[in-house]
Amino acid sequence: MKLRLNFVKQVALGLILLTGCGDQQSKKDYDMCEKLPMQNDGIVRLSKIQVNPDYLEEYMKYAVEVGIISLETEPGVLTMYAVADKENPCNITILETYASQEAYKSHISSCHFQKYKQGTLHMVDSLLLDDVTPLNSNNKLKNYIQR
Amino acid sequence: MKLRLNFVKQVALGLILLTGCGDQQSKKDYDMCEKLPMQNDGIVRLSKIQVNPDYLEEYMKYAVEVGIISLETEPGVLTMYAVADKENPCNITILETYASQEAYKSHISSCHFQKYKQGTLHMVDSLLLDDVTPLNSNNKLKNYIQR
Repeated sequence: MKLRLNFVKQVALGLILLTGCGDQQSKKDYDMCEKLPMQNDGIVRLSKIQVNPDYLEEYMKYAVEVGIISLETEPGVLTMYAVADKENPCNITILETYASQEAYKSHISSCHFQKYKQGTLHMVDSLLLDDVTPLNSNNKLKNYIQR
Repeated sequence: MKLRLNFVKQVALGLILLTGCGDQQSKKDYDMCEKLPMQNDGIVRLSKIQVNPDYLEEYMKYAVEVGIISLETEPGVLTMYAVADKENPCNITILETYASQEAYKSHISSCHFQKYKQGTLHMVDSLLLDDVTPLNSNNKLKNYIQR
């Protein structure tokens, strides 16, 4: 499924969800939480983001932070592995795996995701969410932050 | 680095390397081997493959097999995670990580890779090798085959 996210909807969602979100998510002393098993309605996705070159450095900080917090604190965020093209570092791809639709909803309503989303809206030229299917269901990834 | 592989060179390499390659790599009773640490000259890559729709099912079998054998038997193949677009399953992306240039050379000269490469040459409409850089060097993947 390819989705171009609706800017207005995202801003509105952000404004609602940011209420009550402090900055406690910025702390970097988390351990990895226990992960949920992948469910039938889980999501494997390649998010393809083109970042405005003027904001690349700043965008990277947001993306790294949300990756760390999501992986370390969300039981349903199984994978969040972001890479930049060597030829054009503004082309970012993130391999994301969510244990279920519920886990995904929980992720996008989290304070740390909304901080990333609202903080980078003006930095992102385009966003494409490509949902994918692993070729081999026995091929597994364990994704973690090394401390 | 984006590379369009040279068909003739690949066939020639394949003919040389296939000499002496039996089918012992097809057996499915491997355990995961110990992995090498990532080196400074390691590779993180998104291989983007467009498969001819007429051969998709057959291609999948080759791709799954080479993924299993490479992960289970090659110390320098750290990641080989292949996914197909849900919208267009002929668009395959493989996240590949090699511990070093040497590990990559060893991989492409292996019998199982050459079986895949030569066996699927006529099935592949295009191949793009996008070398990438992880945004966070502490974000780690452990990739394995679940038995």
